[in-house]
Amino acid sequence: MSDKLTDETRETGDVLLPKFGADGLITGVVQDVRTLEILMVAFLDAEALTATQETGFAHFHSRSRSKLWKKGETSGNTLKVIEMRIDCDQDALVILAEPAGPACHTGARTCFYRKVEGASLAPVRT
Amino acid sequence: MSDKLTDETRETGDVLLPKFGADGLITGVVQDVRTLEILMVAFLDAEALTATQETGFAHFHSRSRSKLWKKGETSGNTLKVIEMRIDCDQDALVILAEPAGPACHTGARTCFYRKVEGASLAPVRT
Repeated sequence: MSDKLTDETRETGDVLLPKFGADGLITGVVQDVRTLEILMVAFLDAEALTATQETGFAHFHSRSRSKLWKKGETSGNTLKVIEMRIDCDQDALVILAEPAGPACHTGARTCFYRKVEGASLAPVRT
Repeated sequence: MSDKLTDETRETGDVLLPKFGADGLITGVVQDVRTLEILMVAFLDAEALTATQETGFAHFHSRSRSKLWKKGETSGNTLKVIEMRIDCDQDALVILAEPAGPACHTGARTCFYRKVEGASLAPVRT
């Protein structure tokens, strides 16, 4: 199959055909299914995607530890997957999830707790 | 400054200190400021971040063309930035934006127009 045909199939087709990058990863954006707040961004390889689909809980590939990582495996703050959506070229996922607790390792509800104001950051009031 | 101190400063500080990857990029997630729908995911280098901040319109780094890319420069479907948020380790941005038209190059309102159902994809009804 030519690259062009593959690209078209990816965009218009009804087959999951993730376009993993040279690093073997696609981007995962976790969104709270209830509030639609974006909770975190992490990366999935084929193993993490399979584990997420098989267990119903979000798994990622830890780039720093080079291994499969179930979100919340130590903290208990798991993410129950309600729905997953994939983008046009199939290199990014939106994971609509029910969080069991704060999604950020800092204890914040979301990793995006600061807004950018020029060269400074300010807390987001939510 | 040690790496550890830098990491702490990134997480807790009030200074914008983007952690560009080995490829010079951070992840950008565009969210409709009104509906909170996730419209697209793309990548920013330092040049794209500066252009976004200076113009108030979302710019990215095109990995395929290796150049700065103003979203909508040809289609007219620009993204007016209302607020930007950065995550704990400052390697991902949420761009809350007002879209001028469909965000996806396919003509869809969002790039995430399909949900994953096992090995298949199905249209998202919105």
